[in-house]
Amino acid sequence: MSAPRNQRIVLASRPKGAPTPANFRLEEADVPKPAEGQVLLKILYLSLDPYMRGRMDDAESYATPVAINAVMEGGTVGEVIESRHAAFKPGDFALSHSGWQSFAVAEAQSLRKLAPAQAPLSTALGVLGMPGFTAYAGLLNIGKPKPGETVVVAAATGAVGSAVGQIARIQSARAVGIAGGAAKCAFLLNELGFDAAIDHCSPSFAADLAAACPKGIDVYFENVGGKVFEAVVPLLNTFARVPVCGVIAQYNATGPVEGPNHLPDFMRTVLTKSLTIRGFIQREFASDREAFYTAMAQWIASGQVKYKEDIVEGLANAPQAFIGLLQGKNFGKLVIKL
Amino acid sequence: MSAPRNQRIVLASRPKGAPTPANFRLEEADVPKPAEGQVLLKILYLSLDPYMRGRMDDAESYATPVAINAVMEGGTVGEVIESRHAAFKPGDFALSHSGWQSFAVAEAQSLRKLAPAQAPLSTALGVLGMPGFTAYAGLLNIGKPKPGETVVVAAATGAVGSAVGQIARIQSARAVGIAGGAAKCAFLLNELGFDAAIDHCSPSFAADLAAACPKGIDVYFENVGGKVFEAVVPLLNTFARVPVCGVIAQYNATGPVEGPNHLPDFMRTVLTKSLTIRGFIQREFASDREAFYTAMAQWIASGQVKYKEDIVEGLANAPQAFIGLLQGKNFGKLVIKL
Repeated sequence: MSAPRNQRIVLASRPKGAPTPANFRLEEADVPKPAEGQVLLKILYLSLDPYMRGRMDDAESYATPVAINAVMEGGTVGEVIESRHAAFKPGDFALSHSGWQSFAVAEAQSLRKLAPAQAPLSTALGVLGMPGFTAYAGLLNIGKPKPGETVVVAAATGAVGSAVGQIARIQSARAVGIAGGAAKCAFLLNELGFDAAIDHCSPSFAADLAAACPKGIDVYFENVGGKVFEAVVPLLNTFARVPVCGVIAQYNATGPVEGPNHLPDFMRTVLTKSLTIRGFIQREFASDREAFYTAMAQWIASGQVKYKEDIVEGLANAPQAFIGLLQGKNFGKLVIKL
Repeated sequence: MSAPRNQRIVLASRPKGAPTPANFRLEEADVPKPAEGQVLLKILYLSLDPYMRGRMDDAESYATPVAINAVMEGGTVGEVIESRHAAFKPGDFALSHSGWQSFAVAEAQSLRKLAPAQAPLSTALGVLGMPGFTAYAGLLNIGKPKPGETVVVAAATGAVGSAVGQIARIQSARAVGIAGGAAKCAFLLNELGFDAAIDHCSPSFAADLAAACPKGIDVYFENVGGKVFEAVVPLLNTFARVPVCGVIAQYNATGPVEGPNHLPDFMRTVLTKSLTIRGFIQREFASDREAFYTAMAQWIASGQVKYKEDIVEGLANAPQAFIGLLQGKNFGKLVIKL
């Protein structure tokens, strides 16, 4: 019987514009051996998130790009196969950042141990993980919705957006979600309890959004950019807050965007409406993380927060699923089940 | 002997682009009579400030536009001629918002009494008034410079900019000023103690700015917009703060700005650098005003803050002086002496 092999997907080349399957390469390698203080993990779930598009570029950012021929990065849930650290034993489950591969060694101290009896393991990559915490930290620290205010979020059935809207409701704010297509909009209204849902595919999108926000917008949680942002700006109220956690519509941009140049007008609106525009990455608010785990677990238990996962089977399907994520083809938090 | 008449300048028509003298009209009227609780003021000084350009447009803003045929608005220092309120007597001096005219009645309760022995009366319109407070409130509440950080401000010899740079120095930050021409740059270095001064008229402006900010920019106090802002953005550090109190370069804009569209790239920079962009108007921080008066008076007395006024004589010269202000022709705080 041959020893198991590590399947891994590496960055074969940097995309120009939208990624294609040719930018990725599936390859085999030996299963690595843990050193002292490390564990060997068999990866069960891989998270696919829009930020990974940025890591494929060799551009200035808050994060180092993935090197050519290196394993694509990503959050993962794994089972401990072998442990050389007292805190873990085989059969334990852990959250790690092991990337697109089927086995990985990790420093035990970098891992978060997971209790499968408390929540499905995959939620550690979504509503109870980085995306949920992004929503929580950005909305509460920057958006600061007050009761009765209007909170708008796009990609609203996604991992971050669905949490933003539901946490806004818990803060007694009005939640308006933007999503692509009737099925996603119905889900926002009927399952997640949003106050309004707007289809950005509709030709009357901007007018529909304005009609859904009769008192203007107090918080716009920015995770998409592009035409959605342009429709939001005129509706922002004085002292509105715009936490910016992503601009997915622009991740595949390859060059200058056709004019006119909207930046001067935008800065004038920032001035005349006393707007706050604030980019962030969740780790800036790491000190809130334990409070988030506690609160979110309670909200899920009480039914105040629901979540939807879009689970795709097989590591080999990760590139195509990721390409679809950037096009909004997923419906819920996208996770690869290995 | 005929009774004195009120000279006043009204908005004759709304400008299209840059204002011209034809947008203003000097007219005469009776000197008004104060009612109970009011005082009659003889105006001694009129402040001219860039924000007035916005009031000439009939556009959405935080302030109501000046109506056609109404007196142009503006901060003023006046002498009380007649008082119908116990707190004021003839010969008192007061800060009011009486606009471009030689006499005005004002509610006594809306006035700030001035002590000419403590500071020249005109400073109540500049370093010890709204512009100085704009600098103080925006820099300390939003910019929050830390010791050793780099603070950049444009229109740096102006009323707001000169205070921003000097307050930054008092906070032990590095002050880099941008101004138009060698004389203004020399003044920043030799008189105001800025650490560096950059001439925005130079063809190598962007490169000069980069060279003056070897550790990047931590705070950019935005009061001009346009090409200066475009040169600043690439130099902003992670977690940089951008208080926005004006975009003078855009006040005369008449339509869409030629492309490419820089807004998508800018929002991506907001994200990847975790920037804070925050529009404000000083009255939002009204609770800091008494602390400002105390601090600024001490800084002036100790020589830590210096100020320069550009005083133009005669109300009739106000339109041309204001037109020049929007072109950067003033050197120091622009004040009309009546």
